Amino acid sequence: MGEFDLIARIRSAATTSDCVALGIGDDCAILRPDPANELVVTTDMLLDGRHFRLGEATAEQVGYKSLAVNLSDIAAMGARPLAAFVAVSLPRGDAEAIAMGLLRGMDPLARRFGVALAGGDTNAWDGPLVVGVTVVGECPTGAAIRRDGARPGDAIYVTGPLGGSLLGRHLRPEPRLDEASRLRDACTLHAMIDISDGLLSDLGHICAESGGLGAVIDIQAIPIHRDALALARRSGRDGLDHALHDGEDFELCFTAAACELKSLLAAVPTVRRIGVITAGGGLRLRDHDGTTHAATPRGFDHLR
Amino acid sequence: MGEFDLIARIRSAATTSDCVALGIGDDCAILRPDPANELVVTTDMLLDGRHFRLGEATAEQVGYKSLAVNLSDIAAMGARPLAAFVAVSLPRGDAEAIAMGLLRGMDPLARRFGVALAGGDTNAWDGPLVVGVTVVGECPTGAAIRRDGARPGDAIYVTGPLGGSLLGRHLRPEPRLDEASRLRDACTLHAMIDISDGLLSDLGHICAESGGLGAVIDIQAIPIHRDALALARRSGRDGLDHALHDGEDFELCFTAAACELKSLLAAVPTVRRIGVITAGGGLRLRDHDGTTHAATPRGFDHLR
Repeated sequence: MGEFDLIARIRSAATTSDCVALGIGDDCAILRPDPANELVVTTDMLLDGRHFRLGEATAEQVGYKSLAVNLSDIAAMGARPLAAFVAVSLPRGDAEAIAMGLLRGMDPLARRFGVALAGGDTNAWDGPLVVGVTVVGECPTGAAIRRDGARPGDAIYVTGPLGGSLLGRHLRPEPRLDEASRLRDACTLHAMIDISDGLLSDLGHICAESGGLGAVIDIQAIPIHRDALALARRSGRDGLDHALHDGEDFELCFTAAACELKSLLAAVPTVRRIGVITAGGGLRLRDHDGTTHAATPRGFDHLR
Repeated sequence: MGEFDLIARIRSAATTSDCVALGIGDDCAILRPDPANELVVTTDMLLDGRHFRLGEATAEQVGYKSLAVNLSDIAAMGARPLAAFVAVSLPRGDAEAIAMGLLRGMDPLARRFGVALAGGDTNAWDGPLVVGVTVVGECPTGAAIRRDGARPGDAIYVTGPLGGSLLGRHLRPEPRLDEASRLRDACTLHAMIDISDGLLSDLGHICAESGGLGAVIDIQAIPIHRDALALARRSGRDGLDHALHDGEDFELCFTAAACELKSLLAAVPTVRRIGVITAGGGLRLRDHDGTTHAATPRGFDHLR
């Protein structure tokens, strides 16, 4: 099977949607989003040996993850995904099997969230598997929830338990698209991010982008995932430490003022209120006894 | 310099534009295109050892090429580019220098065509340089020029001389955005493609997508690039063969009925009329003496 046969197979199998006037097979795809909406665009490149290990993970799992992490970015804007574009560099020799595996991993996820697989680029080489996904989404103009909207006094929330994703959850992130949609219906959200680098690191991005704000986090309030506890038994760190610093949880972290926790919980039962945005003072943890101390993010730096 | 310092540097250096409500630095970029327009989206992934050789080519040249080939796809739709998204996997050790080199190569090209560098993803690894670029563009709804609009009797045109790009031109393709715009003002274009795989291969895509049409090409009319002749002196093939089959020329090939060559030449002086679309019969070459014979594309297959 050559490049064009493979593209033809992908084209016949790929999901499409109403807003896609032209999908796979031309120089560009053509999209016709709702003119009342603004567009959101995100891109992530996943690398064998870095974001997954092909062999430990199947091509299907890699396909799922590479689309899911982009959908998570769309969720973090409170937006709706429209179309995905997938560029791959396939290890020569096993190129076709891997390509079809990637597609099998992406396709059910795309269908579930109504995302069209609308275009891409297919290469083979002697290097490891690289999967680059770009997703275009939409939301009403002016309604996207950015990182830079937090205000002093905002409560800080997360959508679910954190830490220990390395035990396997990092391969099957659940894009919180529906949760984000229900939360924004329940309350005016000021700032939102998905937790990919680690809670402290990503909350730090919100604080920095919102004009150098700070945050105080109640350590008792942080929902610790059972995987964080399981990993702690091996790592010599504690579960809280994993919950604060581990990456690739893909839960949402958001801030809001004057939201009733009850309405947020009605929207997303796993939501937890974990702290408050402050005018400054950096990131601080509040201990059981009320004392606070400075906390330093040590989330993943992709260049180190 | 870590990941976030590098992103901050790229963010401060990158071009932006009016339609970008939010650029680099959030989970997604936010675009606000003209609501009267439809969107076009394209993505291409360039690999060290495959599309360039880092060392022979500078990072700056790689940056230029990786954006230019995507702009060429936007040109092939007769559209206007709005924003580019750049995902990179940088060889560890030299990551920063390469990243800044890529940016130096992209930035002047982006400015020249009014394209914002609106987002991306930065990774380092032990593998070779990978650059994935996605470009979003726009054109009036219904006006994008697709591959599937050719009709029997259409004349076939190319925007410039072909072949021998391997001698160096493949690193500095000129996106024919302005040319496409002038051509569509001058005439109703039926189908268009950029020549990336090779003239016969790409014209074959037009014929196949337009419902299994054929084409007869006058070999005397094909503009042969002087690089094709220079390469022929080494390759044992002739210049015409290079012009028909070499990839990465990034000239446009288009079809139209009832266009005056005079108006097309006034729009783009290097345009040449090279043949005619037929109802069937595959791709054929017409020789000096009027005889025709079947021609088989042997453009680049990225999986082989």
